[in-house]
Amino acid sequence: MKHYRKELWFDAPSRMHFTNITSEIKDCLTESNINEGLLLVNAMHITASVFINDDESGLHHDYKVWLESIAPHAPTSQYRHNDTGEDNADAHIKRQIMGREVIVAITNGKLDFGPWEQIFYGEFDGRRKKRVLVKIIGE
Amino acid sequence: MKHYRKELWFDAPSRMHFTNITSEIKDCLTESNINEGLLLVNAMHITASVFINDDESGLHHDYKVWLESIAPHAPTSQYRHNDTGEDNADAHIKRQIMGREVIVAITNGKLDFGPWEQIFYGEFDGRRKKRVLVKIIGE
Amino acid sequence: MKHYRKELWFDAPSRMHFTNITSEIKDCLTESNINEGLLLVNAMHITASVFINDDESGLHHDYKVWLESIAPHAPTSQYRHNDTGEDNADAHIKRQIMGREVIVAITNGKLDFGPWEQIFYGEFDGRRKKRVLVKIIGE
Repeated sequence: MKHYRKELWFDAPSRMHFTNITSEIKDCLTESNINEGLLLVNAMHITASVFINDDESGLHHDYKVWLESIAPHAPTSQYRHNDTGEDNADAHIKRQIMGREVIVAITNGKLDFGPWEQIFYGEFDGRRKKRVLVKIIGE
Repeated sequence: MKHYRKELWFDAPSRMHFTNITSEIKDCLTESNINEGLLLVNAMHITASVFINDDESGLHHDYKVWLESIAPHAPTSQYRHNDTGEDNADAHIKRQIMGREVIVAITNGKLDFGPWEQIFYGEFDGRRKKRVLVKIIGE
Repeated sequence: MKHYRKELWFDAPSRMHFTNITSEIKDCLTESNINEGLLLVNAMHITASVFINDDESGLHHDYKVWLESIAPHAPTSQYRHNDTGEDNADAHIKRQIMGREVIVAITNGKLDFGPWEQIFYGEFDGRRKKRVLVKIIGE
């Protein structure tokens, strides 16, 4: 069994931001020399997500508006977590909705994807450096 | 390490539809000859989910009503994604809530399940052929 | 390839309850003697979650209030699932939002975690004994 690990760093320019990281993940897979297996990509921080969906700016806008409507940032005083001095309780909720991680099948040395699947780093408490973990096992 | 891959095709009869695919997944596992490992089942399309829950029609009704209430299909003009000519922005949101994939432990050649766990293909933009990917690694 | 399996049992003292199970999962990893691989932790019941987030009591309060607001327990008559004699339809919904499972990378014999990641068993229909499955594969 082969295994591979890498950390990727991101610094989102706004509180809520989605970054297409598919090409970075493909580079990891190439570097790993793994042809058959499973690839895990997870946010290492608990106010961020990794998810798979479409790279379409209108959709990303819709996600942000919808997430803000069901788990609003303000007023920050509505959340007990923010009594600790944080203002990011909503980001912890948004991350649970969008998910921490994705698992992608690796087949013939490629991400085994449907026609529109792209991997995104979803940031909900940005404007600072945060990490994503890539772990691949297989052969 | 052994590995196995299969695509399963579905054509849901309505926009939102849940299909119990547990027996198809069991057939894949039998075909794989893998006794210990991990099994990934993921939607290959980004307006569909794979999830594990109960095979109870009342519950499926409740899921549909609830999903429609928090991410309604209409009016389609409320979503910027639909400006591209699509009408499925709500389906992209519903899929994120219900999830893209499940990972199931394989033990002694069986899906290592609790008493009520069943695997479903969850369609949110149906009435056309779409795919699910099954990947199993182990020994 | 090595593989390891264990069931952990929990009896939550209230309907909705979050239990930090990180130390139990670390014990499983030690017992497995696996240094590199993937670890799956999943609820074996369909009204419970396993998720990764912060061990902060204010945040857990916020999660409970928020989940109750978007998928309320009462009135139980609003859900068709409850016509079967159950009163836990809301718990099936809450579990989908928070997720069934997590996958954690194993690196150098440790859970490969960011600074604040902790694993929780999330119960939404408690006051009875229920199980979590731990499966590790690797070498």
